[in-house]
Order: sequence, then structure tokens, then C-alpha cells
Amino acid sequence: MGVTNTRVLWGVGTARTVRVHWALAELGLQYRTVPTQARTPAMQEEAFQRVSPQGKIPVLEDGALVLSESPAIVTYLAERYSSADNRLIPESVLDRARYFEWLSFISMELDATSIYVLRRHVGLPQIYGDAPNASAVARDYFARMIGSAVTRLSKEGPYLLGQQFSGVDILMTSCLDIAERYDLTVPEPFKHYRERVAQRPAYAAAIAANKPQ
Amino acid sequence: MGVTNTRVLWGVGTARTVRVHWALAELGLQYRTVPTQARTPAMQEEAFQRVSPQGKIPVLEDGALVLSESPAIVTYLAERYSSADNRLIPESVLDRARYFEWLSFISMELDATSIYVLRRHVGLPQIYGDAPNASAVARDYFARMIGSAVTRLSKEGPYLLGQQFSGVDILMTSCLDIAERYDLTVPEPFKHYRERVAQRPAYAAAIAANKPQ
Repeated sequence: MGVTNTRVLWGVGTARTVRVHWALAELGLQYRTVPTQARTPAMQEEAFQRVSPQGKIPVLEDGALVLSESPAIVTYLAERYSSADNRLIPESVLDRARYFEWLSFISMELDATSIYVLRRHVGLPQIYGDAPNASAVARDYFARMIGSAVTRLSKEGPYLLGQQFSGVDILMTSCLDIAERYDLTVPEPFKHYRERVAQRPAYAAAIAANKPQ
Repeated sequence: MGVTNTRVLWGVGTARTVRVHWALAELGLQYRTVPTQARTPAMQEEAFQRVSPQGKIPVLEDGALVLSESPAIVTYLAERYSSADNRLIPESVLDRARYFEWLSFISMELDATSIYVLRRHVGLPQIYGDAPNASAVARDYFARMIGSAVTRLSKEGPYLLGQQFSGVDILMTSCLDIAERYDLTVPEPFKHYRERVAQRPAYAAAIAANKPQ
């Protein structure tokens, strides 16, 4: 039974799919990619519906496990496959508290409440309609939230949890990448942070693996 | 040094603050409440700014730890204070994967992308302005997402992770409570789920502790 047949990642082409490609690359794990893209007929195929009744990417199959939600997949991979010298989530309960705090902050305040509102009403107005007020509020909110995080970044850098790169750096960088696309305000310290993190070989590997074929 | 002086919860009155009161009650932990409310002058006070430069509730102080983001606080308490017969987060890596999947699904799809958009533009239009299109999309999205979760609920019930009540039940129930307030579509199985969970003594204790004084 080859490893590449038991570990399958469904999904390419979005800021959420790249996170899983990146975590797998950081951990040096073999996997096969099914290049399903959002809002394409491939989402209606039976094989995809079987792993994702909700019709969302990314989905990871790992043996018998079928898992959705990119922050959950990154955290699962981190818990299961980290080793002493390559650890994507801390071990101590206090450091883990900080990991979960960043995870929720990034997922809720940056990704869902700000970026996803723009994706709907700026990126896909033909589907969701225009909503200039909601979009303006989302832009302001992103600027305020990322601004409020600068103090914590500079105190603890180079990575969000300090010296150790982890899963929350993957989540944050993917949000900063898309923030640039929507021309959102990103403070200088986070621009530098992003440049540092983007030099990791696994980031380049993930960007390549996430390209629609 | 008394326990109640070292563990302090800042915040009452919102669907996010009640989660932390509830987790503390489930775990039988002593704490002191500072009844800070959202959008009140108390948020400008120096003591609050010290624990929450971002101006958000809830915040938990636990000894030297100062932690924000309600899903993170619930998960931290679950990791730190669960015991063999009172466990708010599973131990096995596969069950934990499911916990993190629910956590992200509830935080992002239900809370941030749906409910929080309505809180802005239906609950607080005097601050954020009207956005009928974004609000309609948020309502549809909530209905679609909670609908897609029904299969997983009925298969694994009575709780989200099966037989064991956990932190993600706290998050889900708090969202269902607020869904009722905004008159959102909730499928029957989730109405029954909510009624079951709401019978827990710690839920009643949390609702009482979360009341503005």
C-alpha cells in the first residue's frame, strides 16, 4: 500500500487550499493531489461529493480519515506528524494557548470576517451581488485588526510564536498573500514578516503544487 | 493567593463571552468576573486596555496568561483542566481532528461569515450602516452551512463528537442561541440538539453569569 494512495489532498487554486499543500511540504509528507477547483463542474462529480458533501475545498483524506476546514487540517497534520526537530504546533499548554489564539484571530477576524466578505462582494459580485457598504466595513476591519496585531508580532518575532515556525504562520501568510490581491492595508512589520516566511522552501513548493493544472 | 484572584474573566453579555463562562462552569473552576460590556466606556479604562489592547471581550487571565478569542480560551481550558471523567477535548489525534474541524466550521462559517455580518448590518446599522445584499447572503449562507452539517450531527449525536460533550458543543450552542435572535433558519435536528445541550446545569450557570449586572 503506497503512501501516495492513502493520503490524498483535494483542491488547488485558493488561499485555503495552499495552506494544506504547505503543511504537507513542511512535514515532508508524500501525497497525491486531486486538482479540484472551486466553482467548477468537478465539484459535482460523485467522487468529490463523497469526500465533501458540503462542496468545499480543501479536503484531506489520510487513511480512513476525511477532513475539511483548512485550519483544522493544518492543525491535525501538525499534531500527528510533527517531530522533535520539525514541529508545527508547540507541546506546552501555554504555548498551545497562543497557537489557538492566533488560529482563531486569523480564521475569524482576518479570513472570514474581512477577506471572505470581499471575496463575495468584490471578487464574485456576479454571484453574490454588490455590497459597497459591507465591503468598506470589511476593509476598515481588516486594517484595524492587522494593525492591532503588530505589537504582538514585533515582541515575539520572527514567527508568530517566536523562534519556532508553526501552523499559524501558514494561515497568516496565506491571508497576507490574498490581502495584497485585494489591495488591503498591511503594516510594514507584517510585510517584512511575510517576506521572511516566503523564503521557506516549503512555501515555494506549496505555491507550485497549488497551481491549477 | 486565592484561586479567584488569579483567574479573571473579562466580559459579559455576548454570545462570545458566554462560551468562557460555560467552559469554566463545566470544568468546575473558580474565577472572578469583571463585567465589561462591548461598546461601553469601560472598554476605554486602563485596566481593560492592559489585558485587551484590541478592545475585545472575552479575555481570560489565568495566572500570568492573558488570552483572547473565545474558541481559543475554551480550547485552552479544555486542554489544561480536563480530567479523566470530565473531558472537554478528546485525547486521540483522530478525535481531536474532528474537534478542530467543528471548531473551524462553527467559528468561520456560522459565527464570523454569517452571524457577525448580521450583527454588523442588522444589529448595529447605526455604526456599520445598512447592507441588505450582504445580510441576505449571510442568511442564505447560514442556512446552507447548518443544513450541510445535519448529516454529521445525526450520525454521531447526541453531541457533535458523539457520546462525549466537548468544547465545540459550547461554541455551536452559543451560535444557535444567537441564530434564534436573528430569526435564522435552523433545521429540526439542530433545534433538538440545542434543547438537549441546554439542559446541562453548567449552561444555566453560564447564562446567569453572563448577564450584564
